[in-house]
Amino acid sequence: MNSMNTTNWPTLGHIREVAVRINPHITRTPVLQCSTFDHMFGAAYYFKCENFQKAGAFKTRGAVNAVLKLTELEASKGVATHSSGNHAAALSRAAAIRSIPAYIVMPRNAPQVKVEAVKSYGGIITFCEPTLQARETTLEKVTKQTGATFIPPYNHIDIIEGQGTATLELLETHPDLDIIIAPVGGGGLLSGTAVTAKGLNKKILVFGAEPEQADDAFRSFKARKLIPSVNPDTIADGLKTSLGSLTFPLIQQFVDDIFTVSEAEIIHAMRMIWERMKIIIEPSCAVPFAVAIKQNVAFKGKRIGIILSGGNVDLESLPWLKT
Amino acid sequence: MNSMNTTNWPTLGHIREVAVRINPHITRTPVLQCSTFDHMFGAAYYFKCENFQKAGAFKTRGAVNAVLKLTELEASKGVATHSSGNHAAALSRAAAIRSIPAYIVMPRNAPQVKVEAVKSYGGIITFCEPTLQARETTLEKVTKQTGATFIPPYNHIDIIEGQGTATLELLETHPDLDIIIAPVGGGGLLSGTAVTAKGLNKKILVFGAEPEQADDAFRSFKARKLIPSVNPDTIADGLKTSLGSLTFPLIQQFVDDIFTVSEAEIIHAMRMIWERMKIIIEPSCAVPFAVAIKQNVAFKGKRIGIILSGGNVDLESLPWLKT
Repeated sequence: MNSMNTTNWPTLGHIREVAVRINPHITRTPVLQCSTFDHMFGAAYYFKCENFQKAGAFKTRGAVNAVLKLTELEASKGVATHSSGNHAAALSRAAAIRSIPAYIVMPRNAPQVKVEAVKSYGGIITFCEPTLQARETTLEKVTKQTGATFIPPYNHIDIIEGQGTATLELLETHPDLDIIIAPVGGGGLLSGTAVTAKGLNKKILVFGAEPEQADDAFRSFKARKLIPSVNPDTIADGLKTSLGSLTFPLIQQFVDDIFTVSEAEIIHAMRMIWERMKIIIEPSCAVPFAVAIKQNVAFKGKRIGIILSGGNVDLESLPWLKT
Repeated sequence: MNSMNTTNWPTLGHIREVAVRINPHITRTPVLQCSTFDHMFGAAYYFKCENFQKAGAFKTRGAVNAVLKLTELEASKGVATHSSGNHAAALSRAAAIRSIPAYIVMPRNAPQVKVEAVKSYGGIITFCEPTLQARETTLEKVTKQTGATFIPPYNHIDIIEGQGTATLELLETHPDLDIIIAPVGGGGLLSGTAVTAKGLNKKILVFGAEPEQADDAFRSFKARKLIPSVNPDTIADGLKTSLGSLTFPLIQQFVDDIFTVSEAEIIHAMRMIWERMKIIIEPSCAVPFAVAIKQNVAFKGKRIGIILSGGNVDLESLPWLKT
């Protein structure tokens, strides 16, 4: 890794500054424990509840950071992104904090609940065909017309450093964790988690958790080269994206291992958290705990931080009710 | 009310003692706020989250208190009750703390999830026909055979004083509330809430929240005499019971008013809490917030405590998915 240009990598020092910057605009989410799980699996779990974050997901941290870092001139022209998920809502809300426009390119088939979330924060939606190419060309058109700054969902230092602040909070109150597990889609959360945890304590093991059916991070990590997913299909819709040019080397450098779980294991873990902890998490959010259950023999006796990434789920359509 | 014998009424002094007694065996549940609701309704809400309580409901407080107060001789013979709901699970768990048997009489048609909960805490179940008469005669048989002490679900001073400890915790951290709203079924939680709140601060208004379709407390309160419900039918299954000989005069004395809400209003409030707060509450638990929404003009600008009573809901059958 010595040949890599690491001068623009995120650092713990930056992440501390980001935490101060975004603090007035985010929720310091609680860390919950569950004695039933601890007893059941013989480990001590600490759940960092980003499902209680503003706009319902950790994405708020990175989006607020990116928006607050814009110059006055940049900010005056607004921000833009393409997303059908939590980043779109988070960016719309972040833009509203600076009273600037957020231009959101969404595929026509985006879930109505996500469209409503973006609208509720004042995001200006441009619909496009549901292909990556259509999303990119439509976004390019929008940014050319408006001069808005593109804020990508994960492959950007401001985003990664924002997401890292969740782990900073977790380790402030629980510094003696042995393991932290975060979900991995595009890798913004996982790389931010790893940079923060390793910066504070090199002994903490940081693991990525990924659906078997969208396992590009697992395969890339093992092959030591970027291998994007092709048409991944998983209930964990937030984890379909592939690692980027910045998140991949960060994960290769700072993450200890990546584990995958099946669709059934994800649904089982999600339902256990709903039933036992009485909190609402989305399928993507259940993936780290699904890994912890699967690895429970190896993790016995450990103190394990679990990043619960988000709680934006369609209450009309729960996975265990599907036929 | 001066003619009434109030020597055996619950008191704030007792409730403080109960809090110390049960403290090692219960969860000090968090108080959550929700800026979206505060903004939406122009009031400040403080949700006391007994859905996160051990065994999933406030019932744990009274049951633990009643079990811990038994003499060694009484305890050696165990405890008994008839219940198809949260009291059965809470009593089974409380008995397990003292390693004594809990004999639970349940109707044959009790939901499987409730049966499993009782079993998971080691409760010994006797099934009976689903009528009040069958439940009472079966319970009598069981207590005669075993010598177990009957622990009623609400109409008992130890239960009421136990339930009051939730409000003690709420007002310790948020002493300046204007209003507290609790659900009312048999009245154990509401009377314990009112005795505690009025004992600490006479100015706090205490309101009961009840389904229109099980409105015996509303009618009894207005008529100033006990009028039990006949075959009430509501989605708020925990609130079908009628006030008792002890809870009714306490409510008449200490509660300021009782408000009712429709089934649709209950479902709407439940869904809003799931969607916005990302926490799981059962239908009975949504009734106080449904009242707050309905009375939002009258409650504008107030600081309102909401007792969230429980989170034991059948995830296979959500009310907004029923046809």
